[in-house]
Amino acid sequence: MTVGTHYIIDAYLKSDKLIKLADDNFNLFNEYILDKLKKNDMNVINYSIKNFENPPGSFTALYLLSESHLSFHSFPELNYIAIDCFTCGKCNTQNLVNDIMNYLEPIKYLSNKIDRNSNNLIGKQISVI
Amino acid sequence: MTVGTHYIIDAYLKSDKLIKLADDNFNLFNEYILDKLKKNDMNVINYSIKNFENPPGSFTALYLLSESHLSFHSFPELNYIAIDCFTCGKCNTQNLVNDIMNYLEPIKYLSNKIDRNSNNLIGKQISVI
Repeated sequence: MTVGTHYIIDAYLKSDKLIKLADDNFNLFNEYILDKLKKNDMNVINYSIKNFENPPGSFTALYLLSESHLSFHSFPELNYIAIDCFTCGKCNTQNLVNDIMNYLEPIKYLSNKIDRNSNNLIGKQISVI
Repeated sequence: MTVGTHYIIDAYLKSDKLIKLADDNFNLFNEYILDKLKKNDMNVINYSIKNFENPPGSFTALYLLSESHLSFHSFPELNYIAIDCFTCGKCNTQNLVNDIMNYLEPIKYLSNKIDRNSNNLIGKQISVI
């Protein structure tokens, strides 16, 4: 029995996008994420954001959800952000992923959808350009 | 260029193991994890643990690391725990995974090792019984 859906995403953004996210200490993006989690019926128990000085503009954000977790790790020197969205129950996780992508406007991203507890961690990768 | 190693693990434990972990509010396991993260040169910025009432004994634990994150989501009704360990830099992530497995003593687990930012999110699954 599958317990949840796990989206693993490697996203590549325009050259100044991650620096801009970090410039406001992630606040605007964080507010957007909190709003979209709520909209998609996911309950945030708490969250933690760490802005790193080196390399400038890099950050990690972890959201502990009743339905599992959402994570971001940014690498502005590569215009790259790693995103994981793991949700249990009847969440519309694809909607949340779409909302995140609408904000980040990646040039390209890879996404792999894995069903946890399904005897298959290989999943199915798609590439979106 | 790979930015980090992501171990995705679905582990199946003996029938009372997850309930025992939850009975002490995860404290003993948490202390063990914090010790092993330190031993394996990973720096914990903060962590968050949530014990859920329903189903009894279920919990989520998220560790925000300088090197990315570690997460646990337990499903005691299935004797199943989902583990993700995503580390950047030169961490010995396999050692940490071994330490976790030594504590949990799974009957069986599936592990998939993915290199993030490698244009491949399929990884390589292994099954250990």
